[in-house]
Amino acid sequence: MSFLGFLMGKPLASSEERAECIGPIAGIPVFGLDALSSAAYGPEAALTLLIPLGMAGIAHIVPISLAIIALLAIVFFSYCQTIDAYPHGGGSYTVASENLGETAGLFAAAALMIDYILNAAVGISAGVGALVSAFPKLQPHTLALCLVILALLTLINMRGTKDAGAAFLIPTYLFLGTLLLVIGVGAFRAITAHGHPVPVIVPPHLPAATSMISLWLILKVFASGCTAMTGVEAVSNGVVAFREPIQKNAKRTLTIIIVLLMIFLAGIALLCRAYNIGATDPTGAGYQSILSQLISAVMGRGWFYYVSIGSILAVLALSANTSFADFPRLTRAIAQRDYLPHVFQIRGRRLLYSHGIVALVGFTAALLIVFGGVTDRLIPLFAIGAFLAFTLSQAGMVVHWKRQPGNHLHRMIVNGIGAFATGITLIVVLVAKFKDGAWITALLVPALILLMVSIKRHYSSVRSEIAIDRPLNIDNLAHPFVVLPLDGWTRISEKGLRFALKLSDHVEAVHVDAEDCREQVAELWERDVALPLRSAGHIVPELVFVESPYRFVLLPLVDHILQLERNHPERQIAVLIPELVVKNWWQTPLHNQRSQLLKLLLLLRGNQRIMVINIPWYL
Amino acid sequence: MSFLGFLMGKPLASSEERAECIGPIAGIPVFGLDALSSAAYGPEAALTLLIPLGMAGIAHIVPISLAIIALLAIVFFSYCQTIDAYPHGGGSYTVASENLGETAGLFAAAALMIDYILNAAVGISAGVGALVSAFPKLQPHTLALCLVILALLTLINMRGTKDAGAAFLIPTYLFLGTLLLVIGVGAFRAITAHGHPVPVIVPPHLPAATSMISLWLILKVFASGCTAMTGVEAVSNGVVAFREPIQKNAKRTLTIIIVLLMIFLAGIALLCRAYNIGATDPTGAGYQSILSQLISAVMGRGWFYYVSIGSILAVLALSANTSFADFPRLTRAIAQRDYLPHVFQIRGRRLLYSHGIVALVGFTAALLIVFGGVTDRLIPLFAIGAFLAFTLSQAGMVVHWKRQPGNHLHRMIVNGIGAFATGITLIVVLVAKFKDGAWITALLVPALILLMVSIKRHYSSVRSEIAIDRPLNIDNLAHPFVVLPLDGWTRISEKGLRFALKLSDHVEAVHVDAEDCREQVAELWERDVALPLRSAGHIVPELVFVESPYRFVLLPLVDHILQLERNHPERQIAVLIPELVVKNWWQTPLHNQRSQLLKLLLLLRGNQRIMVINIPWYL
Repeated sequence: MSFLGFLMGKPLASSEERAECIGPIAGIPVFGLDALSSAAYGPEAALTLLIPLGMAGIAHIVPISLAIIALLAIVFFSYCQTIDAYPHGGGSYTVASENLGETAGLFAAAALMIDYILNAAVGISAGVGALVSAFPKLQPHTLALCLVILALLTLINMRGTKDAGAAFLIPTYLFLGTLLLVIGVGAFRAITAHGHPVPVIVPPHLPAATSMISLWLILKVFASGCTAMTGVEAVSNGVVAFREPIQKNAKRTLTIIIVLLMIFLAGIALLCRAYNIGATDPTGAGYQSILSQLISAVMGRGWFYYVSIGSILAVLALSANTSFADFPRLTRAIAQRDYLPHVFQIRGRRLLYSHGIVALVGFTAALLIVFGGVTDRLIPLFAIGAFLAFTLSQAGMVVHWKRQPGNHLHRMIVNGIGAFATGITLIVVLVAKFKDGAWITALLVPALILLMVSIKRHYSSVRSEIAIDRPLNIDNLAHPFVVLPLDGWTRISEKGLRFALKLSDHVEAVHVDAEDCREQVAELWERDVALPLRSAGHIVPELVFVESPYRFVLLPLVDHILQLERNHPERQIAVLIPELVVKNWWQTPLHNQRSQLLKLLLLLRGNQRIMVINIPWYL
Repeated sequence: MSFLGFLMGKPLASSEERAECIGPIAGIPVFGLDALSSAAYGPEAALTLLIPLGMAGIAHIVPISLAIIALLAIVFFSYCQTIDAYPHGGGSYTVASENLGETAGLFAAAALMIDYILNAAVGISAGVGALVSAFPKLQPHTLALCLVILALLTLINMRGTKDAGAAFLIPTYLFLGTLLLVIGVGAFRAITAHGHPVPVIVPPHLPAATSMISLWLILKVFASGCTAMTGVEAVSNGVVAFREPIQKNAKRTLTIIIVLLMIFLAGIALLCRAYNIGATDPTGAGYQSILSQLISAVMGRGWFYYVSIGSILAVLALSANTSFADFPRLTRAIAQRDYLPHVFQIRGRRLLYSHGIVALVGFTAALLIVFGGVTDRLIPLFAIGAFLAFTLSQAGMVVHWKRQPGNHLHRMIVNGIGAFATGITLIVVLVAKFKDGAWITALLVPALILLMVSIKRHYSSVRSEIAIDRPLNIDNLAHPFVVLPLDGWTRISEKGLRFALKLSDHVEAVHVDAEDCREQVAELWERDVALPLRSAGHIVPELVFVESPYRFVLLPLVDHILQLERNHPERQIAVLIPELVVKNWWQTPLHNQRSQLLKLLLLLRGNQRIMVINIPWYL
């Protein structure tokens, strides 16, 4: 299996069988959640910036939303072509590194890692925002609620969800259904009321305008609104999961997702204008999310309201879950190319790349804590990673078409427009949001790349250090010098001594004389060890006493071993360390500290010629 | 050095040289701090219980303090005899276990451990109480301040203080000097004003009486006040530290400490009555400690006030430090008798019993957090441990004198009175404080004893399991079967293979075929290993391939090794595990996870016949 498979957007590896034959109906929850749920925070982020304009600000959301929808259309056509070109999955990391080279791949890798972490943080915080809108009393506990949801997601993902199908399907379609209904009913009322419908519940009054509209503000609003586009690359990542005809099904799914997202963006913008709904201060008392106001205005605060808000919370939390599925696969793929610690390649107990999950949870929690769990503060950091990945992926596609035999000018132009549009947007977002937090992402990307490059350099230097271009050296294959620390005469010492005798003719037992029982040990040794060996004609190992006036055991022992090593430059030294293995975990603190410490000391102070042999004794 | 030495009250082992020749002047800070600082919270604890009686309650503090002083006198004479009998240090654990048997020793051990933990918690919380009295704005941060001081003490003790002499001397004598001056000046003013001196700063008004005096309340007040006696056993623990004439110097020091403590208790009680000073609610706003009120009333709130409060804070924090010095020594002594995990016997990097410090800090922090850092809530738990230790120690002394040749009836009676008085006090404290928290200690002592007994039982069972009463078995000393996991052909694999060949004629290299490079590895093996060995006439190890369709490496390897073990019942199996040793600690996350995991898996799933051999490769 190539590393591409690990970049797919599916929730978990164990569900591969199910996911391998999905059509558009199942594809929308699996790959569309991330994109569709963005509708819950993108328009909100844009409108929040319009607060200072008061009532007049709301009008501007319509043209800005239309601009975002136009960008979405460009990206849509670009990604349809990526699906055609990479039927086995064309994630940004793949496309960029295959077509634009290693450096572009690193940029995409850094951008994607940051994007996944922010996706988890924003999904959770926006979900909690919905919850807080419905139950305003919870507002002071925003951060705590965010961390609780993060902990729940961690628990679920660490255990491994065997079948997340239903968990995804129901809330997704509930979310789509309720939101479409709200937009439909709202639009109908707005049209029949000639653009001035009467809200069922009047939205909070908007504060008076405190500033004027400016091009700068429009750019910032556009940049914030662009977060609504995050997640649309998921289908092109996971093409391989669709059933035959693969590419057709994938494109059909992408089309449905994009069209739905467009309807949401347009609908929310128009209804906000019709119902005079603006954003409220997310940190102040009485905060209410845009969707909460919209649903209340159109449908009132009955059961429908709570079902809708519940589905929004669920969908946002599940969209955060996408990061849990994808981040560990991404870090694994990067680690396979030596750019991250190899530990990210190891599967944990439940066959998950648990180190990736731990890293994701750590960074997400840090983000949530630093930004107090407020979506609006996280947004400025967010879109950059996503648009950097978009741009690199589309630019990579242009190179891809150029390299293909035949004339692909038309396709190059489509992807070129995509790359250009997302690139321009990237610059707009970076400039407009720089002061508000984009500088953090702008610093993090090169910092991450630097880190990855230095990790790669370390691995390369180790690789060249251990590389060998000659056959096995067969000189001097003499037995090693075996050292056995001897405490008293027990079954464990017998086992250790027998093993030592099996390994080598040069065995030395060392007794650290910390308890003044030298004669006793010497006598035991003579009677129980030396005598039987001598009478069987076997070489008798030497018994050495090490003085320890201060009752220390380990340090004199290590010093003695190091001295032995210096005295026998022609031999390797093998130190036998008996170790108790307990039956129950709670007995662990009662044993083995000395053996562990001795092993650690030998590792730290030892050298190439000192080996450690563990002799386990199972109780 | 016997384990007695480790029970001494000295701050740190490294200061032994200095401490071995101290006289009373240096002895008071070293051994008296714990006892003398009790004056800062004992009377306070008693007066707090008198709050409901209003103004009338203050009068009762005088007779209760006199009762405590009388008890102190009895304990004084008892301990003078202990000093005579145990010139090498007579801690409660020693005296009880030597004279009353193992069970009494365990009671003393449990009581002392609890006492040390509570001493640390109460010292810190009372110190913070003094600070909060001087700066009332800090009150909401009481718990945080407690934890900061605990962290500071931990840091200091983990690093190891080379010479704590000056750190102890100055604040101790500042504390003694200022408190004696306050009592002297206050007494003078009270006498010249015929018992009704005018306070410089009027103490907070006392609330109206809400309940009547009762015998039950008097008992409770007495029980709380008895916490002022904690710490008086320190001198008898550390007799060996005094200079010649040892016993005379120790008794002189004990006399000075007890007399000073008596003056403090009597002076504080009488001045509280004269100035109408009562306790304030420690959890309410406007809390002020008794000593803070007293110093303000007698001397005003000038520089003298802040110097006094500063010295109280320092002395209380340093008295908490006594626990840091003694608790690890106590746990070590108990661990040496198998009643606690042996890990408590191991000295850490800085030659301290760091596990004991970690345990102490953990429990102290837990206590502080559970009780919110409020001294008054901790007090009910406190005196029990101390008085249980007093009683056991004095009762042990009675048996000691009985066993001595000659007539020691007089001494037996003195210690008998001590045992009786402290025993009665123990019962009073237990009954009077049971509901308020003494039940916690009353449950903890038997729980700890149960734990210690089951630890001892485990160690005994292990000891009998590994005991051997026959000479070394010299049958079947055939070479073990050596298994070497082989990844590719590197210097590390060469080192491992060479070591394997040195150990045994039965070597098997195992390649887990996770990356479909079977032919490549086989070719390398033939060219670089098999060929040179064959041409040198050496036995060629077998190269085995293990299938791994799922790219796992470790699990198929472990399964293969377990299978080998079953197939070769006549041989032991030695698994060679190459391991990289990095130069810098920060490189650790980049390596070795697989080796560590393999070792862990082999340890958990392995058995008596499977050994692990570490082959370190130093980068």
